[in-house]
Amino acid sequence: MPGAEGTDKNKEKEVAEKASRLAGLKSHVLSNPVRLGIMVYLLSRGIVSFTSLQKVLDLTPGNLDSHVKTLEKAGYVIVRKVISGRPKTAIVLTDRGAREAERYLRELRETLDVLEGEKFNP
Amino acid sequence: MPGAEGTDKNKEKEVAEKASRLAGLKSHVLSNPVRLGIMVYLLSRGIVSFTSLQKVLDLTPGNLDSHVKTLEKAGYVIVRKVISGRPKTAIVLTDRGAREAERYLRELRETLDVLEGEKFNP
Repeated sequence: MPGAEGTDKNKEKEVAEKASRLAGLKSHVLSNPVRLGIMVYLLSRGIVSFTSLQKVLDLTPGNLDSHVKTLEKAGYVIVRKVISGRPKTAIVLTDRGAREAERYLRELRETLDVLEGEKFNP
Repeated sequence: MPGAEGTDKNKEKEVAEKASRLAGLKSHVLSNPVRLGIMVYLLSRGIVSFTSLQKVLDLTPGNLDSHVKTLEKAGYVIVRKVISGRPKTAIVLTDRGAREAERYLRELRETLDVLEGEKFNP
């Protein structure tokens, strides 16, 4: 069937394109799974305390701090000192952060969608 | 509605779990987008020549070589010299590589699925 063969060729091209776009994410701030994890958590809550984020992600304070600083520098989050009883550090999602995280996750989803219906099925 | 509130709590817990699992991928071989891109390409083809992979992913030979070596060390690919006319280097997907890449992509998909239906929709 020449038609089916054409479809295979298209599929192959599409997979190559997705692989290429994936590889192109290599210098993206969110290509680090810890930072993506932080953003995923923030997308559903908007704000989170440093200590509870540390617990959820099972990270040392130093490690989490370094990732939060990277996200802050990119403008994806704002770090705020909250003083109500014991002083706490809160991490707040920015509009830009929400937009970029959504874009990144959409990219991943599109890649997975292309792969569906391949012999491989995630 | 107490029922809806319970569902929200469950959802929140699920998102926290996914964020935590994402962060846990940080030392995974495939947490690097270039290596994930290579595996995505290989999943659909099984074998690819070094030069065409380099072209698809737009990488320098040195950069691609370093990522391929990491994948080879993990047992995800085998590197073969193919001599038919001009000698070529071929990269071959292993069963283990296919299994691990599928597992990694499934993890990503599950995370995205949990996030769907949130205010955020990828």
